[in-house]
Amino acid sequence: MTKNPFFKNQGPIKLPNLIYNSKTGLTPESGFDLLPEDVLISDVKNLKDATKNDITFFHSAKYKELAQSTKAFACITKKPLIKFLPTKCRKICVDNVLLLTAQVTEQFYPDSITDDNNFNLKPINENFKDITSGQNTLVGPNVKIGNNTKIGHNTIIEQNVTIGNNCHIGSNVILRNTFLEDNVHILDSAIVGKKGFGFIPIKSMNYKYPHIGYVHVKKNSEIGSGSTIDRGSLSITTIGENTYLDNQVHVAHNVQIGNNCIIAGQVGIAGSATLGNNVMIGGQAGISGHLKIGNNVQIGGGSGVIKNIPDNSKVMGYPATDIKNFLKEMRN
Amino acid sequence: MTKNPFFKNQGPIKLPNLIYNSKTGLTPESGFDLLPEDVLISDVKNLKDATKNDITFFHSAKYKELAQSTKAFACITKKPLIKFLPTKCRKICVDNVLLLTAQVTEQFYPDSITDDNNFNLKPINENFKDITSGQNTLVGPNVKIGNNTKIGHNTIIEQNVTIGNNCHIGSNVILRNTFLEDNVHILDSAIVGKKGFGFIPIKSMNYKYPHIGYVHVKKNSEIGSGSTIDRGSLSITTIGENTYLDNQVHVAHNVQIGNNCIIAGQVGIAGSATLGNNVMIGGQAGISGHLKIGNNVQIGGGSGVIKNIPDNSKVMGYPATDIKNFLKEMRN
Amino acid sequence: MTKNPFFKNQGPIKLPNLIYNSKTGLTPESGFDLLPEDVLISDVKNLKDATKNDITFFHSAKYKELAQSTKAFACITKKPLIKFLPTKCRKICVDNVLLLTAQVTEQFYPDSITDDNNFNLKPINENFKDITSGQNTLVGPNVKIGNNTKIGHNTIIEQNVTIGNNCHIGSNVILRNTFLEDNVHILDSAIVGKKGFGFIPIKSMNYKYPHIGYVHVKKNSEIGSGSTIDRGSLSITTIGENTYLDNQVHVAHNVQIGNNCIIAGQVGIAGSATLGNNVMIGGQAGISGHLKIGNNVQIGGGSGVIKNIPDNSKVMGYPATDIKNFLKEMRN
Repeated sequence: MTKNPFFKNQGPIKLPNLIYNSKTGLTPESGFDLLPEDVLISDVKNLKDATKNDITFFHSAKYKELAQSTKAFACITKKPLIKFLPTKCRKICVDNVLLLTAQVTEQFYPDSITDDNNFNLKPINENFKDITSGQNTLVGPNVKIGNNTKIGHNTIIEQNVTIGNNCHIGSNVILRNTFLEDNVHILDSAIVGKKGFGFIPIKSMNYKYPHIGYVHVKKNSEIGSGSTIDRGSLSITTIGENTYLDNQVHVAHNVQIGNNCIIAGQVGIAGSATLGNNVMIGGQAGISGHLKIGNNVQIGGGSGVIKNIPDNSKVMGYPATDIKNFLKEMRN
Repeated sequence: MTKNPFFKNQGPIKLPNLIYNSKTGLTPESGFDLLPEDVLISDVKNLKDATKNDITFFHSAKYKELAQSTKAFACITKKPLIKFLPTKCRKICVDNVLLLTAQVTEQFYPDSITDDNNFNLKPINENFKDITSGQNTLVGPNVKIGNNTKIGHNTIIEQNVTIGNNCHIGSNVILRNTFLEDNVHILDSAIVGKKGFGFIPIKSMNYKYPHIGYVHVKKNSEIGSGSTIDRGSLSITTIGENTYLDNQVHVAHNVQIGNNCIIAGQVGIAGSATLGNNVMIGGQAGISGHLKIGNNVQIGGGSGVIKNIPDNSKVMGYPATDIKNFLKEMRN
Repeated sequence: MTKNPFFKNQGPIKLPNLIYNSKTGLTPESGFDLLPEDVLISDVKNLKDATKNDITFFHSAKYKELAQSTKAFACITKKPLIKFLPTKCRKICVDNVLLLTAQVTEQFYPDSITDDNNFNLKPINENFKDITSGQNTLVGPNVKIGNNTKIGHNTIIEQNVTIGNNCHIGSNVILRNTFLEDNVHILDSAIVGKKGFGFIPIKSMNYKYPHIGYVHVKKNSEIGSGSTIDRGSLSITTIGENTYLDNQVHVAHNVQIGNNCIIAGQVGIAGSATLGNNVMIGGQAGISGHLKIGNNVQIGGGSGVIKNIPDNSKVMGYPATDIKNFLKEMRN
């Protein structure tokens, strides 16, 4: 995500202000390296996308490879992870990496804190006279809709939505913070672009993480009925070209799915997992968070995938293993 | 549940009338102990909540501990379970405990038999002028809404709903027979307070069990998009404080969930299960009915839990076992 | 399905036209048997239902028994399967059986290609004055509703729907191409009659399979909240009498479920599976496609069934096996 298309960035912001104005109680006496007074930070981004004017965060050794090559000016992290970061990257060590990152994000994007509904919606035909649309269909601010696109009944296109040409959006659908390319089908009652299940667990009252990302569904794809596709926190949740999702599928925040994938009913893909191209997943299978599934992978129905899967593999079982092993066990 | 807040109790009712007026065909000649003519019964309650003026039921040895200490005046049960009940509790032995219990419940609460929609709804702003609310939002009888609460579009607050302050209810939500404390978030398309999947299987036409309970969501909690939380039959389905449920979670009738729990997407919790505080459950895991999950338990994604789990355990697998065993097997 | 009740059949069509007018590029020089010039084909049907005036298709050896006794005049198939078909059945061998079948189906039923929403809906009380119905409820063409039936709020009865007497349809429900017998309950937010997840995978743009079937829910049955029941492609998706489905269940296209079944929450049944009578399925269990589950079968919660199950079995596990084996392993 080079420039955030949907949330307004209040940056640049001076680096010390970002840290000391956060609600964490950090002060210049907090014991970490002195922060240069005059450095302006443009944005908060993930390790991969951050440029030399940005701040990033690094909270798990799973991402050490991305950390090693980050271009970020500064990085919020914790002591044991410092060694993976480039020398010139300014380290800001805290106990709760995600909490400070959330509070830095809020300073750049104060609009992003809540996911409250937008109450400033209008009947779709007040502003989109050429659209084929159903009854009771509502549209909010910052919405663009392409030619020859049809939108069903009771559907809510809440805000920050761009829809391409020849798309078909069903009835009872809710869209927000979403970019649909041409010829995308969103079936009835799907919910696309809601904030992810991301928060910092704190007893008495969890701290909600801002979700400044969005959902990007590439051309010719289909999202099934009752499916939920959550938008990314700092990244883009992506559904590749010509990828089909069946009913009641759940795709969590920051997930990346490649092209020509086929994902059957009730599959769940946890946060930040990435899938290659031509991946086929049977019904009710689950993919754990932060995993990498290669190209041309086939995952049997009901599988529970808890480690990375290389290209061209066929796996099944819980935990998922080579499908030959799974079927052999079955014969015993 | 000391006094039913949502359904009108027609009691007290004479004990013999409760039994002989049921549709089971039981008569004074049915062979069980003579029932005192003049005893008035106030209510039907579960083993734990019943007082000395109530009738209760006891249908499975799983509940023998609760049975031993019940204070109920009378108990609908079957012969092999009599020995667990206190001496002074009047036993009413029948073949189908749940069927007679259902028919006794219907006599106290004739309104509870159907879960038909209420057709007497009005646009929310006719009665709640100070509420921030969306378009096409409908409200039925016996609804209270606190200050600074927001309610999205197309949402139906059907009847018997109390909502606290600073709550946020999304769009396309359906609420009935539900009590939400302050600062609760119910996300888009969730369905809370529907009757549970409880009926007595009878060929040709199942007998629907009345659900006189409700759903209680305590403060600072969040229910994810597309989730379904069913109300209790004789008990209260409870979601504790600061507990977060992700999308497409199913919580069946009579379930009790503690405080500070985190429940990921597509988890299912079967009827009458109880969870302690600080329980974390990974995506797609399932908990069988009537189980007890302790405090500080972590259940891995995809697990199938089919026995009780003590405090402070980490389990995974199907059937769920100590997580170390599960991961060891994986390495083989 | 003897005569399609919802889609208009453009047949009879001459057999050579059906094949050479398809978009597959097949010509009389394509190398398969000469097609008789003057044979009129009435309809496209599955192997079992096809009569001597119909064309059918046969794409997997799983269906060899049905193939052996088909009465179809012609069958779209592939070389290795020819041997299973009756001598007098005209074989039309192609590489992609489903693609040609889809294109033949489209010629009989040109209306069936899209599952776009119908935009010609009206408020229910304009045409159904005697119905008890909610607010914002919409009805489309070719809909019949029986006596004493109630329909909730925001519900969309889109087109091609027949509803019996004493039915209850909840709120936010979407129905199309569906036949409900008497006393059926469809709970809130269920989606019944949507086209199935059937398409021919083609890189760059999958080819959507026409779904000319429908959903048939027999008397006294109940479909839970948020469940999705897809209509068949060439067959009828059937829910038997007095069968109850809990919340968030997914039933794929062409599935046949018998009478008196009990199916708990979040169960998924993949395409073309058949279930007998008196089948009980625990929560979150999954049934693979094209399987046959016998009568009186009990399937434990969380199970993954990947082979046929004979009558009177109790199975559990993933892969599902005799429940005694599953519990024995658990004790080790």
